[in-house]
Amino acid sequence: METIQKIPVGVLGATGMVGQQYIALLAQHPWFEVRYVAASPRNAGKLYRDAMAGRWQLSSGWGPGVGDLVLEDANDAAAALQAVQQGRLGFVFSALEMEKDAILSLEEAYAARGIPVISNASANRWNADVPMLIAEVNPHHADIIPIQQKARSWDKGFIAVKPNCSIQSYMTPLYALLKAGYEVNRLFITTLQAVSGAGYPGVPSLDIIDNVVPYIGGEEEKSELEPLKILGTIRNGQIQPASAPKISAHCNRVPVVNGHTACVSLEFGAKKPSIEEVKAIWSSFSGLPQELNLPMAPKQPIILREEANRPQPRKDRDADKAMAVTLGRIRPCTIFDLRFVGLSHNTIRGAAGGGILNAELLKAKGYLG
Amino acid sequence: METIQKIPVGVLGATGMVGQQYIALLAQHPWFEVRYVAASPRNAGKLYRDAMAGRWQLSSGWGPGVGDLVLEDANDAAAALQAVQQGRLGFVFSALEMEKDAILSLEEAYAARGIPVISNASANRWNADVPMLIAEVNPHHADIIPIQQKARSWDKGFIAVKPNCSIQSYMTPLYALLKAGYEVNRLFITTLQAVSGAGYPGVPSLDIIDNVVPYIGGEEEKSELEPLKILGTIRNGQIQPASAPKISAHCNRVPVVNGHTACVSLEFGAKKPSIEEVKAIWSSFSGLPQELNLPMAPKQPIILREEANRPQPRKDRDADKAMAVTLGRIRPCTIFDLRFVGLSHNTIRGAAGGGILNAELLKAKGYLG
Amino acid sequence: METIQKIPVGVLGATGMVGQQYIALLAQHPWFEVRYVAASPRNAGKLYRDAMAGRWQLSSGWGPGVGDLVLEDANDAAAALQAVQQGRLGFVFSALEMEKDAILSLEEAYAARGIPVISNASANRWNADVPMLIAEVNPHHADIIPIQQKARSWDKGFIAVKPNCSIQSYMTPLYALLKAGYEVNRLFITTLQAVSGAGYPGVPSLDIIDNVVPYIGGEEEKSELEPLKILGTIRNGQIQPASAPKISAHCNRVPVVNGHTACVSLEFGAKKPSIEEVKAIWSSFSGLPQELNLPMAPKQPIILREEANRPQPRKDRDADKAMAVTLGRIRPCTIFDLRFVGLSHNTIRGAAGGGILNAELLKAKGYLG
Amino acid sequence: METIQKIPVGVLGATGMVGQQYIALLAQHPWFEVRYVAASPRNAGKLYRDAMAGRWQLSSGWGPGVGDLVLEDANDAAAALQAVQQGRLGFVFSALEMEKDAILSLEEAYAARGIPVISNASANRWNADVPMLIAEVNPHHADIIPIQQKARSWDKGFIAVKPNCSIQSYMTPLYALLKAGYEVNRLFITTLQAVSGAGYPGVPSLDIIDNVVPYIGGEEEKSELEPLKILGTIRNGQIQPASAPKISAHCNRVPVVNGHTACVSLEFGAKKPSIEEVKAIWSSFSGLPQELNLPMAPKQPIILREEANRPQPRKDRDADKAMAVTLGRIRPCTIFDLRFVGLSHNTIRGAAGGGILNAELLKAKGYLG
Repeated sequence: METIQKIPVGVLGATGMVGQQYIALLAQHPWFEVRYVAASPRNAGKLYRDAMAGRWQLSSGWGPGVGDLVLEDANDAAAALQAVQQGRLGFVFSALEMEKDAILSLEEAYAARGIPVISNASANRWNADVPMLIAEVNPHHADIIPIQQKARSWDKGFIAVKPNCSIQSYMTPLYALLKAGYEVNRLFITTLQAVSGAGYPGVPSLDIIDNVVPYIGGEEEKSELEPLKILGTIRNGQIQPASAPKISAHCNRVPVVNGHTACVSLEFGAKKPSIEEVKAIWSSFSGLPQELNLPMAPKQPIILREEANRPQPRKDRDADKAMAVTLGRIRPCTIFDLRFVGLSHNTIRGAAGGGILNAELLKAKGYLG
Repeated sequence: METIQKIPVGVLGATGMVGQQYIALLAQHPWFEVRYVAASPRNAGKLYRDAMAGRWQLSSGWGPGVGDLVLEDANDAAAALQAVQQGRLGFVFSALEMEKDAILSLEEAYAARGIPVISNASANRWNADVPMLIAEVNPHHADIIPIQQKARSWDKGFIAVKPNCSIQSYMTPLYALLKAGYEVNRLFITTLQAVSGAGYPGVPSLDIIDNVVPYIGGEEEKSELEPLKILGTIRNGQIQPASAPKISAHCNRVPVVNGHTACVSLEFGAKKPSIEEVKAIWSSFSGLPQELNLPMAPKQPIILREEANRPQPRKDRDADKAMAVTLGRIRPCTIFDLRFVGLSHNTIRGAAGGGILNAELLKAKGYLG
Repeated sequence: METIQKIPVGVLGATGMVGQQYIALLAQHPWFEVRYVAASPRNAGKLYRDAMAGRWQLSSGWGPGVGDLVLEDANDAAAALQAVQQGRLGFVFSALEMEKDAILSLEEAYAARGIPVISNASANRWNADVPMLIAEVNPHHADIIPIQQKARSWDKGFIAVKPNCSIQSYMTPLYALLKAGYEVNRLFITTLQAVSGAGYPGVPSLDIIDNVVPYIGGEEEKSELEPLKILGTIRNGQIQPASAPKISAHCNRVPVVNGHTACVSLEFGAKKPSIEEVKAIWSSFSGLPQELNLPMAPKQPIILREEANRPQPRKDRDADKAMAVTLGRIRPCTIFDLRFVGLSHNTIRGAAGGGILNAELLKAKGYLG
Repeated sequence: METIQKIPVGVLGATGMVGQQYIALLAQHPWFEVRYVAASPRNAGKLYRDAMAGRWQLSSGWGPGVGDLVLEDANDAAAALQAVQQGRLGFVFSALEMEKDAILSLEEAYAARGIPVISNASANRWNADVPMLIAEVNPHHADIIPIQQKARSWDKGFIAVKPNCSIQSYMTPLYALLKAGYEVNRLFITTLQAVSGAGYPGVPSLDIIDNVVPYIGGEEEKSELEPLKILGTIRNGQIQPASAPKISAHCNRVPVVNGHTACVSLEFGAKKPSIEEVKAIWSSFSGLPQELNLPMAPKQPIILREEANRPQPRKDRDADKAMAVTLGRIRPCTIFDLRFVGLSHNTIRGAAGGGILNAELLKAKGYLG
């Protein structure tokens, strides 16, 4: 029976925006089912249903039984361990919204108790033994997990993270070009990011109706640096960041609910593909999730649109379960070599959906139960 | 009496968005008063008041008597000549919305009849003897006017244009740096443009609510090339475009009513100012309109905001009669030298207000009556 | 084989907003498949795919083969007849956007040729022998079809219409109360309607960003009168409108993409149910589409939300395939007896989805092939 | 000299949205100048300029010297008394955002120290000896002030409040009809309210982009009851609320920055004016502020628009310094007698501007210094 084989999973930060998105996306997942929900102490002890009354933000709902789960205190890793021992928990998705240091030590506390942590938070992203995964781009970084476990004397627990939502729309296309043998030296990126990226309550409506906010704290640094770790190499038990490409990012908040758009100008190394080659590389790109036919994997990681005015967030964000990156306006640059516009769904591909895909990958690789 | 001295002016395309903006801004102008309105043949013969019933888009109104003017057919330059002869018209603001060729020949028809044309349209922008003016940047390009008149055997008539609304937010800052002695080699620009830039009815709401459209037809080309003419030199009876800087522009439409935002990365030549010098250059920049104390001139052409999250269109577009450019986020670039965000009001500074300021400049220089 | 049994259907006005919605919803319909598309003469002869390049508004796509259909001229009913004779067409959905008289005679031309017309247009709504159907409310009005056919000497053709999108959110709840034996005398209704209700290009963004337009031409009259026909009785070969309830409607356009909201105050007759009874009546309401288990029918036609701040268009419009009506804020009225807020998806429940459900009903009743 | 005669005023809650609006509107006021600013203890001691860095929401700025004021602790009425003794404070505008009970006792503490409190808060609205003023409607309620002072043994201090922002758009028109001799029995009102009414950060953008929230806590009760006190009579040292009209209100939040719209249906008593009479009554209505020519008073308290699609918040909210109420769509009701749409600017007419006008009225009546 399929149900018997499903891995019971937990969501830390289950009442927040990304936590809700995890729970909604897992409602009918073939491999995982939500059996454990944890949030801040003030919600601990409540039924999930009661805690979410009037706070559930999504149009799709949660899976069977989730409303009746009793919220645990996310700070209490021991409670999670007990759930593991009772067969109610295999691993956790971390969508914690706390101070960075608190998340860092809390995720370690879970992992130390033998509970794998697939995290959406940024706290652990720059630990050299923590893989920052985009399943189509650097699945081999999972190889750091045994090293991480050994170094920290952890048994089955480990921490794996995903990168910031702002880089999804250019990271896969960038990687596809590198994989095809073209070096990329430099990238200018301007993002137009959706309000859901700031969580809930997040961006006040008075700041964004009929307006643009040309600043998102910390976002430009993440957009410039995280790609280098993702493109890095495992050496001496560490993920050593790549040294190229150099990225300059301007990050803006715009009045869009979901879907981050990026305007990109890209400079190749000495060897430069034609626009047609670029299009061919992108439209034929496929990765390990596609090869493994993972449940959350989009059929095509990159979708090209030929219309002059696409991609657009409202019309393209949901492409292929909101897991594909949609590209358009592929054209020469007057300064660099190539310009394009990329788009991806920030709370699905860029957050919960990407996390689930990472978990599927790690399950397929044997790291999860 | 002041009223007696006012120059009677006409607005061609008086029922369109920019035409309305001209009429609203001229409602209490100290030098000019609207005495002539012209639009498409189907509105000709109607009172302006009646033609605009339910179509007036602005919250401020028109000046005394304008509602009672009878709309003329904008195609009928002879009617305008008659108005000149009757003392009801000194020059016209062209806010025509027609095909490029039609505008080109129509503006020439007015000028040939001795009527100066201060135009908002793009049709005449690339004629080498037509000045494309930003009053603070290239007021000396007005010197081409006598050459234009002579070459075309026009008496008092001439054509002067203003550039596209998308370049206002970076053109003045760029010029201020050049004027201070710093060469600029290259500029990456991504604009987030307001819907009013597309006129009325313009952008369908179904295309822009909860959305971004990463394409505006012809806008990127204008954003890349028009600065070169503005920075050009009069030589051999022609305005010869400058050869630098090289510009790469991505133009986006966002759900904002008024105010174009630009994210800019800029590369200096060999000599590079510090960030503090740049700020000093910008905050102290002043031009001929300020020196002449022209009525529509902002006190400070460039306003700097120190807050991390400014400028913002809704909060900064109206700065100094909506005629100032507001800059913020001035910081180093990881690839080029300097990054900043610029903002200007597209239908005022970038259209009607800029046109009126040009007319004031040309009046002060003796070209208008 | 299932495919063989599917009825081939046509969409008139296939390039417009409602036409697109029909085509998207029929992409995987178990009974019907789109084999015929027709639009204005200027698109006739083009592949549907080519005609829609850059104009397709929806995030979901069309069904297999639809892109390769050649658009017919919708004015050419003879072409449709030929398609019928070739087995490529069983009946048509009319989503025509033309002048009322043109639609009236064109829909008749199709019906006269033996082609049933399931129409979204308002042209035929007030013909006394044309049923205006909400499948859960007045399925028995289909009984007028044989009378219509006989009176007009039509063989298999007929015209059936659906009511305006603005009434969906209160019509089913109103009917449920009547069916439960409570008379309703009067209704005050204020609607907050989405921009998609105006088609494409429809509402200019300059009219609706940061704004409300408190007027939609003809909408208040439809909102007040159409319910009376739907509640009417077939007598003497005509649908005689009901005489109650009396309705007063204020219709507003708001910056919402999809989903019409209605604030309703309702006065019962002498017999007045308690608020709890009302809730019980609504949550248990079911109609013929549910009994027949029609493919497009929502499981529950009326969904109640208990949260203080629901229903909301973005969060509730997609409930049960966007075919359910969601109600909330059910409370006493200080003047009448009952107040509530209703919401339904205007282009699905209120247009294409409602039309498809009507077709399913008529198919089940034997009127379609 | 005019400056010498200005009354120094304080703003309690000076960092909040309404507090900012007070400070912006008073920047060039001929009678009052802001010399005292107070906010929560955590801001006390900061320069106003520093406290507002990055938090000032308005496009217009504050008056000379305000940025250099040191913020006081609003809880410290004794500090205000000291300011009075030093000639730096005549009275305060209360824009406090605290719990109701805290505001109640705090406003009393200021008044008890001899400092008149002109309040925007709702805490004191239902005290029978506190006038709830709309300057054009019930200026005579100021007569309760001496009674209030006597009853509470206060010397020069007193409390006067203004009603909720949601009622402004129908309260003045309602009163104008009553004043003209027409009884009004019942009113159905549906409001579409701007997000600025909820303060800052207020409504999360995730709740309102592409959405409507059909609920505002406490707003419907205020909208139904406050008009009765405003129309009440001073009797036995109390303001006795009127018993009519009966009001039913639905209050909605919509994606509009500023400007509350109300759709109103109104039932007269036995004597019913024609639509033309109603228009004449409204367009000619004038009140005591107009008679006294108070600085903040609109020339015409009620502006009628004849266009079918007005009033609209973005186009009409700023009419006459944003202090006029704009009405449109005046037409018969199918159930009651009259329907119309009203609009007023919620943070100016409905909050700070209305408060300033009240202060001007009380100054003119001799209650303020």
